Amino acid sequence: MLELNPIGVVSSPVKQPVDDVWGGVTSRIDLDASRFTADSLRGLADFSHIEVVFLFHLVSESGITTGSRHPRNRPDWPKVGIFAQRGKNRPNRIGVTICRLLSVGNLSLEVAGLDAIDGTPVLDIKPYMREFAARGEIRQPDWATELMGGYWKTPG
Amino acid sequence: MLELNPIGVVSSPVKQPVDDVWGGVTSRIDLDASRFTADSLRGLADFSHIEVVFLFHLVSESGITTGSRHPRNRPDWPKVGIFAQRGKNRPNRIGVTICRLLSVGNLSLEVAGLDAIDGTPVLDIKPYMREFAARGEIRQPDWATELMGGYWKTPG
Repeated sequence: MLELNPIGVVSSPVKQPVDDVWGGVTSRIDLDASRFTADSLRGLADFSHIEVVFLFHLVSESGITTGSRHPRNRPDWPKVGIFAQRGKNRPNRIGVTICRLLSVGNLSLEVAGLDAIDGTPVLDIKPYMREFAARGEIRQPDWATELMGGYWKTPG
Repeated sequence: MLELNPIGVVSSPVKQPVDDVWGGVTSRIDLDASRFTADSLRGLADFSHIEVVFLFHLVSESGITTGSRHPRNRPDWPKVGIFAQRGKNRPNRIGVTICRLLSVGNLSLEVAGLDAIDGTPVLDIKPYMREFAARGEIRQPDWATELMGGYWKTPG
């Protein structure tokens, strides 16, 4: 067992879990003021993107899948293992998303396109470097491309 | 506080922390056989890349930086906050890397380009979907590009 301590929390206009339409969402991350200072974020504004590691905190222990399931319970998509999908009901409940950094304050950041709801505990913030992109040709199954079709759409 | 349980462990030819030359490294992830089955990885082989969330387990509590430091202690690079660099001495000690998936077994995977040393606890495995790449133009400071120059090099 391993004990982690959230470094901050997300403030988002999205208050409940949703599957899609994360494209237009602007949110804020506030760092834990008891442990961090403006120095913790020094130089971050030189990056256009960050990677946010966060917790799907509303998923209960009993809601976690260890085997396989249909992504989004869609029977027309194949039943795949929990490590072959990015759904939230996963062991350790960790989410990872690259989003655009809009501004950096003393103990907070504004980001665009973070798919984490209001109140989400943040475990880490990393600067995104283009050398950490997928290297080589990318291949993914059709169901994944279909699933992602509306994910980053903007409302309306 | 939040309790996590590693889902598996890395076997790598790299036995000690190193800064560079991760390009040619092939390693294996073995899932915890007491909690997972082949079903947990079902369908994963349809993806060319995975994202691995892991723990920098050799970093001690006292080695963690919360403020700023020179990346790799290089005084010619600017002093930046721990959240503006990807160094291992970070709060919660979490690493995230996209690597190439070579093969999937019953309870194990082979990957190329995973920058985690032998014995590293794995917290999550996610399939990489191209829609999760950085969206929009990427900007990063010169020190980061310079730092990454040798990171994915192959030996010799």
